[in-house]
Amino acid sequence: MRVPGVEQAPLRHLLQRACRRGVISFAVGLPANELLPAEAIARAAGKACRDDRLALQYGLPVARLKSHVVELMAQRGVTCGEEQVFLTTGAQQAMDLLTRLLVKTGDSVILEEKVYDGISLALRSCAPRILAMPASSAHGIDVDAVEETLAAGVRPAFIYVIPEAHNPLGGRMSVENRQRLASLARRYETPVLEDDTYGLLTYDDGAPPPLRAFDEQWVAYLGSFSKILSPALRVGWIVAPEELQEPLSSLKHGSDLDTATFGQRTLSAYLDTGGFPEHLEGLRSRYRERRDALLDALAEHFPSDEWNTPGSGIYVWLRLDPDIDTMELLEDAIDGEGVAFCPSRIFVAGDAPDDGRGLRLAFGNVRPDLIGEGVARLARAVERYRARARRPLESLAS
Amino acid sequence: MRVPGVEQAPLRHLLQRACRRGVISFAVGLPANELLPAEAIARAAGKACRDDRLALQYGLPVARLKSHVVELMAQRGVTCGEEQVFLTTGAQQAMDLLTRLLVKTGDSVILEEKVYDGISLALRSCAPRILAMPASSAHGIDVDAVEETLAAGVRPAFIYVIPEAHNPLGGRMSVENRQRLASLARRYETPVLEDDTYGLLTYDDGAPPPLRAFDEQWVAYLGSFSKILSPALRVGWIVAPEELQEPLSSLKHGSDLDTATFGQRTLSAYLDTGGFPEHLEGLRSRYRERRDALLDALAEHFPSDEWNTPGSGIYVWLRLDPDIDTMELLEDAIDGEGVAFCPSRIFVAGDAPDDGRGLRLAFGNVRPDLIGEGVARLARAVERYRARARRPLESLAS
Repeated sequence: MRVPGVEQAPLRHLLQRACRRGVISFAVGLPANELLPAEAIARAAGKACRDDRLALQYGLPVARLKSHVVELMAQRGVTCGEEQVFLTTGAQQAMDLLTRLLVKTGDSVILEEKVYDGISLALRSCAPRILAMPASSAHGIDVDAVEETLAAGVRPAFIYVIPEAHNPLGGRMSVENRQRLASLARRYETPVLEDDTYGLLTYDDGAPPPLRAFDEQWVAYLGSFSKILSPALRVGWIVAPEELQEPLSSLKHGSDLDTATFGQRTLSAYLDTGGFPEHLEGLRSRYRERRDALLDALAEHFPSDEWNTPGSGIYVWLRLDPDIDTMELLEDAIDGEGVAFCPSRIFVAGDAPDDGRGLRLAFGNVRPDLIGEGVARLARAVERYRARARRPLESLAS
Repeated sequence: MRVPGVEQAPLRHLLQRACRRGVISFAVGLPANELLPAEAIARAAGKACRDDRLALQYGLPVARLKSHVVELMAQRGVTCGEEQVFLTTGAQQAMDLLTRLLVKTGDSVILEEKVYDGISLALRSCAPRILAMPASSAHGIDVDAVEETLAAGVRPAFIYVIPEAHNPLGGRMSVENRQRLASLARRYETPVLEDDTYGLLTYDDGAPPPLRAFDEQWVAYLGSFSKILSPALRVGWIVAPEELQEPLSSLKHGSDLDTATFGQRTLSAYLDTGGFPEHLEGLRSRYRERRDALLDALAEHFPSDEWNTPGSGIYVWLRLDPDIDTMELLEDAIDGEGVAFCPSRIFVAGDAPDDGRGLRLAFGNVRPDLIGEGVARLARAVERYRARARRPLESLAS
């Protein structure tokens, strides 16, 4: 069969390579294996099956789970009703559906210059023009740049943004910038997809409410249970304006039927037990511990480089010196030193410029006692890279 | 937010209406509630969680489940390897992915004139020209018509066909026609999507091997656990030529991440127990009993109408007399008599002609002791419809 060339998903292959035995991997944004609540989920799955004879049948998306989502949203400072909650097969499907719904041929979309590569994959089939905005670990998307673009008359199909626990930059937008972005969305009638996948994994009290708290007409909020409970259950959600519910359902019906899933019922039964708040507190303190171990190790091994202190999420963005290309460094790191990370190039939005100096350290699934050793290996890989880069000059001189 | 008008999925709303208490519903292709192996799945889910600490984590699609699929395929008379098995979120996702992969703007596709409405939904976003071929409950797709179309130089993106246990027509293609269709696919280098969702639910020994047994280069075979184990686990598969595997994976990554799911692990653990062959035998005998009850009732209440005797699957196609429009009849049936079915119009491919006389009776989820009463109600609804249709003439005459 002839098939069109489809670009491969780069993270997928990186995942395979970084999984090799002995490699300390900061490469992929996995939650910690040992913090997955296997026993509680096993019990919830059994209960879901035994209590409801229709747990394995086709059915409407699980209403009880929607009510749990409404409660979680309230914790995030967002008021919504069940009729605004649309359940998805993970946040990735939310991106796929919203992209297919909102982007027409010839449209543009606004992304941050470094973005989660999943949105790029979701956008591939409709291939909009990518308008990449400057973004930083400190402040998130550059709201001035967004305003300038919109004021110039550009009307993108949507603005995709991660205001909290940015992937990959690890940053957080200020409350003022969130308010400004929400009001720009309203003024220019431009939808915003707010990806808040890591929004509940906070380590301090500094996280402002999501954009959705400042606008419910133009912001579609994307949430997920993948990082706070389990990726394999494949449940995410959109808090979307009501006029999007029926079109989303119809589109999901054509994609994977939009039926109740065993994952939805299992999650709902788990949340019914009331054990989630304690579980979440546990996650926060264990991930905070990992974050702190990583920051300490960076201070020791990369004293002259730049990185951020994330107040939430599982990512630290490290910028090395100008001579280093982190995509090239990755070879040395994995094969030479047994440490993996994600180079900046993976995250470049469209054809935004990239100086190749950045790398993402995902600390979620690295045991605290290995984090220091992982960073030491990374430092050695950088040394090795620098030495190799110097060598041709030295041999010329000899 | 402004959204483009998205046509609603008609079956979804029918499902809601036909679910009303007291309605005997032949409307939707559900498996029997009481034949869902809830206890066995509950145990398998628990085992999957407890035996494998990574059961809830991201990971590659479950290889062990692929090996089970290879065994099932062997039972269907198909030889394939794990490297040809691609796991999907149900057969619906298989249709969505293959459609997005194979159909380009301006393409056409060949469908049977009556088709499972899920393929129409999957095709909606790329909107190909639909070439509808004649098809019958007795013989399936008209292979002469397909040959004529291809010989005339038309090169559709694919041919979608259900050779066994047709949905909605209930029919079966002969082995000769399967061989001919496979050889046409080869000769004209045209992919065939063979939907075999109900292929394992056979009630006699007359089922020929799937098309895939006659060609492995041009046939992509779609299978599903939804009807033989549980819809809510959301696991289907494609047996696809190897050159499709990587493009499918990349596309699925953008759609819902193509990661191992809890449903995949649960199914795999269930199949490991070795209990499936007995379960399948049980399904076959219980569905055969329902089929026979339905055929007996049709013989009693619709002696002068046409219907087929399906050798597999859960659908009987009933054709009423020329004066009846089954879409209109449905109103009377549900509201007046408390019985539901699916009218032919739901299944029309593109703008193929439809005389409105056909209806699909899905007998999978109707208890055997209610089937006779359901058909009696349907007969009363037809009577009521005929009486109403006569009335205007009578009042004119008076």
